[in-house]
Amino acid sequence: MALFSTRKTIRFSDCDPAGIVYYPNYFVMAQTVVEDWFAQSMGMSFAELLNVRKIALPTVHLTVDFNRPSRFGEVLTWSLQVEAIGRSSIRLKLLATADNIERLSIQQVVVTVDQAGKSVGIPPELRVKAANYQSATSARKQ
Amino acid sequence: MALFSTRKTIRFSDCDPAGIVYYPNYFVMAQTVVEDWFAQSMGMSFAELLNVRKIALPTVHLTVDFNRPSRFGEVLTWSLQVEAIGRSSIRLKLLATADNIERLSIQQVVVTVDQAGKSVGIPPELRVKAANYQSATSARKQ
Amino acid sequence: MALFSTRKTIRFSDCDPAGIVYYPNYFVMAQTVVEDWFAQSMGMSFAELLNVRKIALPTVHLTVDFNRPSRFGEVLTWSLQVEAIGRSSIRLKLLATADNIERLSIQQVVVTVDQAGKSVGIPPELRVKAANYQSATSARKQ
Amino acid sequence: MALFSTRKTIRFSDCDPAGIVYYPNYFVMAQTVVEDWFAQSMGMSFAELLNVRKIALPTVHLTVDFNRPSRFGEVLTWSLQVEAIGRSSIRLKLLATADNIERLSIQQVVVTVDQAGKSVGIPPELRVKAANYQSATSARKQ
Repeated sequence: MALFSTRKTIRFSDCDPAGIVYYPNYFVMAQTVVEDWFAQSMGMSFAELLNVRKIALPTVHLTVDFNRPSRFGEVLTWSLQVEAIGRSSIRLKLLATADNIERLSIQQVVVTVDQAGKSVGIPPELRVKAANYQSATSARKQ
Repeated sequence: MALFSTRKTIRFSDCDPAGIVYYPNYFVMAQTVVEDWFAQSMGMSFAELLNVRKIALPTVHLTVDFNRPSRFGEVLTWSLQVEAIGRSSIRLKLLATADNIERLSIQQVVVTVDQAGKSVGIPPELRVKAANYQSATSARKQ
Repeated sequence: MALFSTRKTIRFSDCDPAGIVYYPNYFVMAQTVVEDWFAQSMGMSFAELLNVRKIALPTVHLTVDFNRPSRFGEVLTWSLQVEAIGRSSIRLKLLATADNIERLSIQQVVVTVDQAGKSVGIPPELRVKAANYQSATSARKQ
Repeated sequence: MALFSTRKTIRFSDCDPAGIVYYPNYFVMAQTVVEDWFAQSMGMSFAELLNVRKIALPTVHLTVDFNRPSRFGEVLTWSLQVEAIGRSSIRLKLLATADNIERLSIQQVVVTVDQAGKSVGIPPELRVKAANYQSATSARKQ
């Protein structure tokens, strides 16, 4: 299982009057990265998780470093690593680079909850996939 | 100088299919809180800072805890504290509560840059205002 | 019953790299105008309509003229008129002005649907309120 | 020159508490469609137009019909036609379909302006490309 990575073009609408990405828009991009990772590496669409399994993945913690601004027209390469898996939480690390320069890093803790917002354990097959992904991708140097 | 606080209604557009605030939208709200704080407590509109003084305030770091979800129609009370003032950076702490329950807290570091994105010192009168605000509001129990 | 009008400050986040309001953001603003009009002139919060009465108000048609751009820091005055009321649809006209110059006008048709998305008639008391609003405000010159 | 078409997945963040696309987000999607059409069919990136040629393309008019709602996880196929070319304006028609059902159509008029927002003629090579695109794609039945 390879390290998941995906390219996202900075859109006009992502940028603010200073001409750089308006930071809340990085999180909208990050959400699409997590959705794409789900579909590709976890073998389950995010829509299936939400609509069929009735499990949502709210974010409970973020630690973010914005190292360099990004501009309209640039293409960011995002990668995603699984740093830790708990009973009902997963800690992810997202990195976005362009021109070999790290633009931002996001440490994000998501939790599994049911439709009433109550904590539920990570579904077993998702746990297995996430653990496999973690061990397969953490060995490689970032 | 009183602790700045402002109320923001959760809009339909802030919420996701799970019926709770989509977390990137909290940062859009937080940005309006910072803009309102500027106008009211720093005596300078954010537009003046950007357009007249040609100083932008990009965010370089965030640490965020989402403690409880918020729903469409709820009203969040946001407060803002200045935690630290550097040569060209300010560390802010934003708290959002509703029904006396903390919904989220944001520690945000912003920096002063010129139009080319180069670091510049905080303008002296802004520094004085921010320092006064910090000392006047940090004494009170939160 | 007076013509509903409300003031909305153009936020940094509303603007694009050209320094003017990014047009999709006008519709987010317009949605808050409709929500505020509901609460104030229809005597019913939009959240109540959606969550208690289980009626949603999707938009099915828009005709929009963007007459002048708007910039960060400007304050738009929005007004809302009811142009027509059908069995399960309402045609609204929203106008946004600043400095006595019309910036944009939106003709918007919304329809009442149940939670399954099926057309339902406008609730009687909402119909009465909307009709009263229409007759009270269409007499006055705009 | 073929009719431009592109597929866009409906993201979690595009949807509202009713579980359908929040309509302002359709315009954010439409803007990426126009950007992609520029790069592919006009042979010029939207960033080049804005940053190198210093020409912006603000929207001055929209007529929009939302025929069917769209849900999280669906994939919309967008096509773009040029309906008319003026001295400094282009009228576009965007169609979004899924499962062979038209979800929405957008008639959008954009104008060419310089950095001061003053009207300028469409650059000659863009005019030629747009005219070629119009004649090559309008012949085919939609």
